[in-house]
Amino acid sequence: MMFREQLKVLDCTVRDGGLINNHNFDIRFVREVYSALSIAGVDYIELGYKNSKELFSPKDYGPWKFCDDDVIHQVIDGIESRSKISVMADIGRVDMDAVKPKDESPVDMIRVACYVKDIDKAIDMVNHFTEKGYETSINIMAISRDQGPEFEEALHQIEAESKTGIVYVVDSFGFFYQENIEYLVKKFQSVLKTKEIGFHGHNNQQLAFSNTIEAIIHGANYLDATVYGIGRAAGNCTLELLLGFLKNPKFDIRPILDLISHEFVPLKNNIEWGYIIPYAISGMLNEHPKLAMALRKSEKKENYREFYEQIKNLEDQ
Amino acid sequence: MMFREQLKVLDCTVRDGGLINNHNFDIRFVREVYSALSIAGVDYIELGYKNSKELFSPKDYGPWKFCDDDVIHQVIDGIESRSKISVMADIGRVDMDAVKPKDESPVDMIRVACYVKDIDKAIDMVNHFTEKGYETSINIMAISRDQGPEFEEALHQIEAESKTGIVYVVDSFGFFYQENIEYLVKKFQSVLKTKEIGFHGHNNQQLAFSNTIEAIIHGANYLDATVYGIGRAAGNCTLELLLGFLKNPKFDIRPILDLISHEFVPLKNNIEWGYIIPYAISGMLNEHPKLAMALRKSEKKENYREFYEQIKNLEDQ
Repeated sequence: MMFREQLKVLDCTVRDGGLINNHNFDIRFVREVYSALSIAGVDYIELGYKNSKELFSPKDYGPWKFCDDDVIHQVIDGIESRSKISVMADIGRVDMDAVKPKDESPVDMIRVACYVKDIDKAIDMVNHFTEKGYETSINIMAISRDQGPEFEEALHQIEAESKTGIVYVVDSFGFFYQENIEYLVKKFQSVLKTKEIGFHGHNNQQLAFSNTIEAIIHGANYLDATVYGIGRAAGNCTLELLLGFLKNPKFDIRPILDLISHEFVPLKNNIEWGYIIPYAISGMLNEHPKLAMALRKSEKKENYREFYEQIKNLEDQ
Repeated sequence: MMFREQLKVLDCTVRDGGLINNHNFDIRFVREVYSALSIAGVDYIELGYKNSKELFSPKDYGPWKFCDDDVIHQVIDGIESRSKISVMADIGRVDMDAVKPKDESPVDMIRVACYVKDIDKAIDMVNHFTEKGYETSINIMAISRDQGPEFEEALHQIEAESKTGIVYVVDSFGFFYQENIEYLVKKFQSVLKTKEIGFHGHNNQQLAFSNTIEAIIHGANYLDATVYGIGRAAGNCTLELLLGFLKNPKFDIRPILDLISHEFVPLKNNIEWGYIIPYAISGMLNEHPKLAMALRKSEKKENYREFYEQIKNLEDQ
């Protein structure tokens, strides 16, 4: 249906998928992912977070919690690729001085994830990374709960003060219907006149793909997706469906199909993501998935009605 | 988001789900489904097909292939319900004379499924059933492959000649994106000025729910859904998400959550439906799911790339 040359697909399989397994994908697996995504023609491949080892111990987390340059080299060296490498940075968790200038690093893009309240810090961070030579984005999380006057102000501040080129609408809770996406993409565009708009969906209500299409229709050009929809809780927009929708001949779905057959079908027997009722409930009730994630690790994992009533009671308080 | 009093929800869990197991749900299970749907306030409950036993043997199929009135009574008797009972009729497979007048039957609605080429026969059938006192609908299947001049003509013929009150857009192959739904619902409305419009989606591309929302936005008032999305191949729009979207206080999602916990989570270990790559492929390539269903019963069930190339080759011929 849709061919627009400016559209960029960012695969965050290893980064968002890493939230399910403490970022513990092994090098062999990540090389398979990187290789298939490269052949498929995906524009950006996001491998994980750039966290400080002062704050998080490498004993507790796998390599994609830190994304050291030498570990990234173990993945990408020897594989032909035109895809760029992305990492994500959280507010207050990065050792900024340890991030080398772009021309000394395999990383091309650093995306800063933040809540509306942290927008000053996010702007500082993207400006710092931009000065070091990286592409950057600001990914505004949890907008479904955060649309007061400070949200509008944050957008104006990004437009006026930040050097980033891209700002993302992030549906952290998987709450939005298509009408919300239309409203938000238009709102972002009306303020962020010099920026590209991106969209990152979660699939709690099986709407991540359709909301991504909706974002495209209204002008978003940066699109997040993951292989087989892997990602925290309900997961994300599936890359294979998105490539099927985009008619740009630079994309090839076939290596992704092989990757799912060989790696993701077996993986899904070991770690859980996707359409699972407690995630659907937290999505439709606009709640963070953490309560549902805790439920899934408990003996009450299939007590859906009780969980619904518990979340409803939270809402009514 | 959406409260429109005319909206009617039709659950076809037992009917479309029956396509996976030769209509072999036992009476206990169907009573559980009927009871939960009744408490949830679903408007119509569709139990199966009204097929002639001359054409299909009861040795090969379960009771929901035939929907005898006495079997329906075994399900509904003793359960308080305001929901209406629906059955589906295929062209040329019904013993019309064996269908009793409405006032002698537990059935309220008979829906006739047809392709564009069979529209004359469908009109005859709905007129016959309407005269016997039933509510009826015409469900036009496979529109994603059938939009030539005869499609437009069929709509005009339905408007002029049929006594049915409802005409459905059916996305049999799970091919449509939201722009197609907008186009089709508007097209139906422009011709079928005296009829209500319905929508029945399939979830091959995870779009059945969002396409149902899209149909609602543009004025469709009859909405098909199934518990936990059960249905042939990729399944249908999930009832629980649809009830979460519709804000009509007459609906209660909680009995559906119990039903999923107790019946559908165990069931899904025994029969297969949902987001499975060969169904996604047949959806995005606008193919009938039968090839994908055959693949899933073969040793090559996880050979996604080979299946994609096979379907692509069909397309190019």
